Amino acid sequence: MLASQEDITRIYLTAVETELQKAVKQANISGDTKLHDMLAYHMGWLGKPINSEARGKRIRPLLVLLSCSTAGGDWMQALPAAVAVELVHNFSLLHDDIEDKSHLRRGRPTVWKKWGIPQAINAGDAMFILAHLQLLQLSEKLTHSVTLQALEILQRACLQLTQGQYLDLSYEKRNDVTIDDYWTLIDSKTAALISASTELGALSAFCDAQVCDAYRNFGRSLGLAFQVQDDFLGIWGNAALTGKSNQSDLITKKKTLPILFGLSNSVIFTERWNQGPIVAGELDEIINLLETTGAKSFTQAKANDLISQALRELDGVHLNETAYQVLKSLALNLIHRQL
Amino acid sequence: MLASQEDITRIYLTAVETELQKAVKQANISGDTKLHDMLAYHMGWLGKPINSEARGKRIRPLLVLLSCSTAGGDWMQALPAAVAVELVHNFSLLHDDIEDKSHLRRGRPTVWKKWGIPQAINAGDAMFILAHLQLLQLSEKLTHSVTLQALEILQRACLQLTQGQYLDLSYEKRNDVTIDDYWTLIDSKTAALISASTELGALSAFCDAQVCDAYRNFGRSLGLAFQVQDDFLGIWGNAALTGKSNQSDLITKKKTLPILFGLSNSVIFTERWNQGPIVAGELDEIINLLETTGAKSFTQAKANDLISQALRELDGVHLNETAYQVLKSLALNLIHRQL
Repeated sequence: MLASQEDITRIYLTAVETELQKAVKQANISGDTKLHDMLAYHMGWLGKPINSEARGKRIRPLLVLLSCSTAGGDWMQALPAAVAVELVHNFSLLHDDIEDKSHLRRGRPTVWKKWGIPQAINAGDAMFILAHLQLLQLSEKLTHSVTLQALEILQRACLQLTQGQYLDLSYEKRNDVTIDDYWTLIDSKTAALISASTELGALSAFCDAQVCDAYRNFGRSLGLAFQVQDDFLGIWGNAALTGKSNQSDLITKKKTLPILFGLSNSVIFTERWNQGPIVAGELDEIINLLETTGAKSFTQAKANDLISQALRELDGVHLNETAYQVLKSLALNLIHRQL
Repeated sequence: MLASQEDITRIYLTAVETELQKAVKQANISGDTKLHDMLAYHMGWLGKPINSEARGKRIRPLLVLLSCSTAGGDWMQALPAAVAVELVHNFSLLHDDIEDKSHLRRGRPTVWKKWGIPQAINAGDAMFILAHLQLLQLSEKLTHSVTLQALEILQRACLQLTQGQYLDLSYEKRNDVTIDDYWTLIDSKTAALISASTELGALSAFCDAQVCDAYRNFGRSLGLAFQVQDDFLGIWGNAALTGKSNQSDLITKKKTLPILFGLSNSVIFTERWNQGPIVAGELDEIINLLETTGAKSFTQAKANDLISQALRELDGVHLNETAYQVLKSLALNLIHRQL
């Protein structure tokens, strides 16, 4: 009997979690488990509360495995790549939380808040190295040549991540950030790792360069859509559900897509933005003001366009229909999510 | 005509510097050079003063290339590995400087002092990724299988680096650190990358596992000796020459080998140590007290023993005598250095 769509997600997630735990165990030092424990806490396996929210959604590894299956491959071959991208993602969260001074991650205190900045920087470094060690395990299932290609794909995505993070930090101090700057930023900060995930899936299925490119492009548009939706939720989402912070992007003055849209289309919104800090009491009024600029519908339409564009990339390159349906649902859920 | 010993060092260092600059250029973002510039500043190519001190001694890449030549290989084949280990070393310095709150590195303000902690964490991450991208270039000159082995060697060394850094940070808060703990620490924090360097050199010369092990062991003892000598200089060296700090390890209360020796062999030294901060005015007196415990001669003897042990590892596995003589001089200079 073929696995149902629900079965596929459950089976993949279980395998990912088991392999993630094995990978992180390598951080253990003889007689001292604390470096490991910091990583395990961040991954949501230690500390309180332990629940699915604390672990995160594991979207990237699911994308690797579903891309591999959809492209006609054996998902087990892509497992080291799936684990590696999730570890890279979590490495970047560990460091971003310090850089952005975030106190909460997935509803719990961040690692730097619990153990201090020095240990948290180092824990991030360890997580990053474990990701690369994990990816080397591809060579047990794939050819050496494909393994080296996979390493290059992941490294290039990581370089883009740091370039994106550099831009993000520098935009905070700039008053002239444009919507074009925004797309440059999220292309590297968010879309790079997601496009690497879907490309690694196809590569693990031994697809040729053209098909790998299609999966890469699928991931890129999906990643952009994901960030646009995140920006949407940063103003119109339920903050309690995201677990990141209880502050609207309007209060933290983050230069997200709807805000940049408002700034480039409304003199009134721009004047208010430039006046100084926005406090919780005036939030409803400023959200209304932003909505009159068309920012809300623009942001929603962008996310929808990007998802449609992403799915078009896969026309003709899905060999396993069941896996494709799961992948498609995942993509659509990303922009319909409430958190 | 064969290259002289001086020629060899000069030729290798020039090639390393050129390739390092090429590698770091990849951090450039279209229209924005600042991420690159932070890395180039740290590497000693930008900012003031620009001199050989600002660049550091490039010991690790020299060890890679000299190990390759000594083992009978073509040093050009090992160049990507040489560049990669230097980038890894500099990544660890960028993060260690934040974690240790160091204001000076090689006589100049540290990156985090100039650009702030968030950008400095991210610059370190970028340096680290460039190291791994660089190592992938080995596949242009070596087999895929050897390239994958090299990646594994470097990743394992990096994991040890982070484990060592975790221990170093945790020892700061402990009062029961023993000399055994010290060896565990420096084995991972200092010796791991140096032993990876010499092993990568031999591997790039296509040596078999036994010879690679000999070079690895050579590097390990050399790395331990290097750290012991660093500890010696932290008390008896000329602080102005090291460019790191103008404070004795006695003032910063770093748990180095001579200090741990003093603590485990002298009640008087231990009592003074436990009394509280040591100020500059009483330094000469406390150094004298430490010397009466035998800490100075113990530390010197340890460094000498370790260098002899290191060189013994290479008995019978040096095929290129000129390169071997340069490698041997480098090893001996490491423990006779004044800075």
